[in-house]
Order: sequence, then C-alpha cells, then structure tokens
Amino acid sequence: MQGVLSDSKVIVTASETDVMGYGEKRGELSLEEAAFMLDKGKLTIKHGGSELSFGEFIMRALDTLPMFTVRYLVYTDLKERGYAVKTGGVDFWLYPRGTKPGEKPAKYIIHILAERDLISLIDLVELLSSARNMRKELILAVVDEESDITYYEVNEPRFDAWIEEDSTEGKTKASLVGDRVVLWDAEFAVKLFKNNFYGKLTKENRLLLSLVETAYLVAKNRLEIENSRGTHAKMSFVQFIDYACTIETDFFDKYLVYSDLKVKGLIVKTGFKFGSHFRAYKATKQKHSLYLVHVLPMDHAFLMSGMARAVRLAHGVKKRMIFAFKGNLSTVRDTDQSIKYVDIGRMKL
Amino acid sequence: MQGVLSDSKVIVTASETDVMGYGEKRGELSLEEAAFMLDKGKLTIKHGGSELSFGEFIMRALDTLPMFTVRYLVYTDLKERGYAVKTGGVDFWLYPRGTKPGEKPAKYIIHILAERDLISLIDLVELLSSARNMRKELILAVVDEESDITYYEVNEPRFDAWIEEDSTEGKTKASLVGDRVVLWDAEFAVKLFKNNFYGKLTKENRLLLSLVETAYLVAKNRLEIENSRGTHAKMSFVQFIDYACTIETDFFDKYLVYSDLKVKGLIVKTGFKFGSHFRAYKATKQKHSLYLVHVLPMDHAFLMSGMARAVRLAHGVKKRMIFAFKGNLSTVRDTDQSIKYVDIGRMKL
Repeated sequence: MQGVLSDSKVIVTASETDVMGYGEKRGELSLEEAAFMLDKGKLTIKHGGSELSFGEFIMRALDTLPMFTVRYLVYTDLKERGYAVKTGGVDFWLYPRGTKPGEKPAKYIIHILAERDLISLIDLVELLSSARNMRKELILAVVDEESDITYYEVNEPRFDAWIEEDSTEGKTKASLVGDRVVLWDAEFAVKLFKNNFYGKLTKENRLLLSLVETAYLVAKNRLEIENSRGTHAKMSFVQFIDYACTIETDFFDKYLVYSDLKVKGLIVKTGFKFGSHFRAYKATKQKHSLYLVHVLPMDHAFLMSGMARAVRLAHGVKKRMIFAFKGNLSTVRDTDQSIKYVDIGRMKL
Repeated sequence: MQGVLSDSKVIVTASETDVMGYGEKRGELSLEEAAFMLDKGKLTIKHGGSELSFGEFIMRALDTLPMFTVRYLVYTDLKERGYAVKTGGVDFWLYPRGTKPGEKPAKYIIHILAERDLISLIDLVELLSSARNMRKELILAVVDEESDITYYEVNEPRFDAWIEEDSTEGKTKASLVGDRVVLWDAEFAVKLFKNNFYGKLTKENRLLLSLVETAYLVAKNRLEIENSRGTHAKMSFVQFIDYACTIETDFFDKYLVYSDLKVKGLIVKTGFKFGSHFRAYKATKQKHSLYLVHVLPMDHAFLMSGMARAVRLAHGVKKRMIFAFKGNLSTVRDTDQSIKYVDIGRMKL
C-alpha cells in the first residue's frame, strides 16, 4: 500500500482502509497505524516527493504529536497482544480480543500516560464518568522509562450491601490522653472490641481508641469524652472534632470517609502498615481486609509512580486500592457533598 | 514500693532500683518505668501528699513529656515481649532478650515516632551514625493511630562486591526520540540486552533505552547520540545530560545513583512498577531483583505513612527498601559527594 503524509494523518486509498479495518475515516490512517504498517513493510509513505524511512517518519510524527513515542509503544503493544485497537476516543479504543473494529463496539477507552506524567483526580473522575456514559471501561496505559507498559483499570467500587450494625448498646465515659483516647470501663471495652472490632484492647482490658473511632462513637452517642486535664470537663462532639483537627490537619476529611464506610456496613481500621489511611473489612470474622482506602484532597494530582506504588502494594496483599474524596468536585456535574470512591487496579491484558 | 513524683522522675529508695534493674540513676525511676510498675500494682506514687491513680499519673506525665503516651505504649510493648528496656539514649535502650540491664550492654537504640510524625533524612542519618559510633543497632518504633507498634531496623546496606563488568565491546549510534533513545543496530542491541540487560528489546531487535541508561553508556563511550531532528547532529555527554534534565527535574541525582550502583557491579532497571526509581539485581541470571532503590533529595523528610508504604511494598516482594542520597549533608561530618544509602526494613521483635 502507498500513502502520503499530511499533517496528523496518512492519506491512502479509501477502499484499502475498509478492507484492513484501519483508519478513523475512510482513506485516512492515523500516525500510529501508518507507523505500524510502515514498520511491518505493508506501507510506503511519501512526503514532499521522497519516501520516508521508519526513523524519519517517527521524527515527523513527533513534531505533530509530542506524545507520539509513548502512543506508538502502547499501540504496538496492544496489536502484538492480538487486540483490535483504533486511535480515537480519549486516546485509543480497544475491542474485545478476536473481534475486528465494526464487528462489535469497543469495550475499553485507553488513556495513555508516561511514567513522569501527572493526572489530576478531577481529570481522572471526569474520564471515568465519560467512559461510563459511553458504556466503556476505562484503562490507563502507563509507559515507564524502559518502555514497559502497565495497564490499570479504573472503576467505581461496588461495596456490596452487608449491613452489620454495631451491636454494642449503652454508653460510657472515656478520657482524652494526648493524641488518643482511653476507655477505662473493662466490660464495655471488651464488648466494643470483640463485637465491633473498635480500637486496641490492652492486657488490662482498657480500650485505646483512635481519634476517628472516638468521633464516630461520640456521634453515635456511645461515648462521652472527658478532657481529663484537671477539670474532667465533658467535650461535645464539635469540641472533640476541633481538637482532633489541631492534631491532624486532614482529620475532618478522614472522619467523613470513615463514617461513610461504617454506614456502608464495613469494619474500618487504620491502614498505616500499608501506607494508607484505612483498611476495610466486610465482617468481623473476616481475617484479611478487602480494601485499602486512602483519602485524597479534591485538588490531588496523581504522580504515576506514587499511584503505581499504592496499587502494587494493595495487589501484593490481595486487596483493592481505593481512593476516596469528597464528591463536590466543582467541574464534575454532581454538586453533592457525598463521599466518592475510585478503585484502581493492575490489569493483565 | 513507694515513690514520690518529682517533675520528670519518680524518687524511690536507692537500693530498690539496684535490685529491680530499673532507673537511669540510683533511686530514680523514669516516668515510663514508674507508670508500668504503678499499673502492675508494684508501686504507689505520691504527689503533694496524696496518692495518684494510674489515670492521674498519666495526665501528670503528659504535662512533662508531650510524647508520653506513645513512649509508654512502646515501653510496655517491649516489656511484654520479654525484653529488658531502659529509658535513655535517644529514647530507649534495648537489651538482648533474656538479659538484664548491666549484664550485657544494650544492643539497640530505640527512636520513637507517632504515625503522624516526620523525620528528616538528615536526622535519620545522624541517628544511624551515632548509633554506629556506640556500636548499637538503630530501631524506629512507630506507633500508629490505633496504638499498634511497627518496628523498623535502619542500616547502611552492604552491597556485596560482585563486580560484573559490562562485557559488550565497541560503540554504536543511537537516536534521541523524544523522552527515550532508540538503538537501531540490531547486533549491538541484542548484545547489550542479552549480555548486560540494558533497555527493552523490540521484536525488530531495536533497543529502547532509558535516559539514565543512555547517559551511562555515553559516559562509557559505548554510544553516540544523534539528535535526529533533521540535522543528525551529535550530542555530547553534557548536552545529553542538559537535555535529560529538561525532561526530568531530578535526572542528575538519579543518574549519579544509577552510575554508583552500576560501578558496584549491580544490574539496574527501572523500579516504576514498585513506585521506586530503580530495582537492582546482583547478576544477569538472577530472576528477581534484590533491592528497590529510591533517590531522595537531601532535604527530604519522611512521613511515617509514606515510609511504611515503601517498606511494606519491598517486604511483600522480598526485596530490601533502600533510600539513596548524595552524601554531602552539611550537618553530617563527612563532606564528600559520594552516594550514601540507608536500608529500612520491617523488624519482628
């Protein structure tokens, strides 16, 4: 086949694109498609009267598309894995393996990033939401320094309804001790720990509670906090939240996510050992947590290496990596204050 | 036993501290020691004429030592694990299990941090160096939100001498293509890949090199870079470094660490999938890498959750987590420019 380079496309005979299943429009090949065919010896490309070598074509393509190198690496990787792929959409459309474009609709939208790129939480959520509107799955293809490609699937997690209400009744007193809270009533402590997995039970049957656990239990009217410094004064919920915010700057967002997960019927513990805010379980009897949940500010931008680390860690311990944020991203259409979640996982294509 | 609270210590009879192996000085107990004995019912503590309850004592101790809660949690954890521990040193001295203080010298220095604390790279290196001068091992005890404690051992890594010189001879040309480099000479490409594990070999036997690999091969006079945009002009080593720094702001530090690891005889590849700069192998035949290496700026401060994530990930894939930095920390005594390493791992006590 013969083609002529014209800016961001290569012009060929219309009938030929029909046969091959290439091309966004009849008679036009994208630069990735043309480079792939050129490299396979299935196409010659002319520009200004002379024939371009593969190297020359790549350089010209880079002038038009600064991301061309990584785009081309992803394109060839997908082709070599036996997928039908077409340029367009966000970056590429990907079709179920074994089908040709046109036979079936595309299943995935591929967004391409280099290892050094950033993607803002807002952009990621908008990508996901537009993929959903088109009934496609969203995949991030990240090209690392050594030109290896890692694929990540992005989803809204479905926390299955498994409502397990806290079964402990009654109310007790607890003392604020610096940056944590001690519940002294041994019977109540044991119940809260054994029934609902709150806090850490000491040998002496005292319960050490974290600040989010305490705030939640105060809100549920299970706990009354004494600020034990001399006065034994009672702290209201608002006073306690204010105090916790002085210890941890992102306390309130963490508390909102913690409460939201609890309301979903999950058991929520610190995810510190995994570098995340929380780990979450479906039931008290479950030995291993299902999810790692990390709370992000709305203006967060993911550095690909940071995302890779979090997802790889979760994958290694057989958990899902979930990022949580307050849902009122101004550029996202919904304006509610509810907590939103994004689940990012490694994907074997 | 009876004691009297006096600021940051509890005064008891001198002979009693001798017998119990407690106390930094004869006749004085630290606040952690006193709280522990008080809680076990082995000590009563008076203050202003009246006897203090455990809760009252904790509150008074917090007034003197704002970190008292986390210090006491670590103290009791170590005691309950059957260790002899004494306050002093950085935070605590830890003795080999089964020995009493005085019988043998302390083996470890324990530094205590809360989950929300930061530790600067400079402080960590100084702690490690002073521990070494005292012939002790350094342990970080990190108390998380839910009062669980994770212990980290900090070491200077020993990269065993395993000098495996790059065996590929000769020199070839390669082209800069945006943010990576293509080596077109198929024979040379296969040799560099198969003998020394450089880059990524494509189906067409082209070698895709990363920027650090390229800089290293140029410095070793194995590669000549053509900036292929039209002119085919040769790029000098300095021109290439300058170019790479425009693509990656921390390129030069990364290059220095890469070169240093190569000189140590290691095989170095990107650590992207693990969220680190590099993974390093001892020999070409080794299937799994031994180390994850992350390059830090000298003014870096570790957030405990970030450190926990990196170390947990490395642990999960059976690698050591190593942090690298340029050795001329102004506050550290040595003033050389060499690359230094810190190895941080989880420790089961």
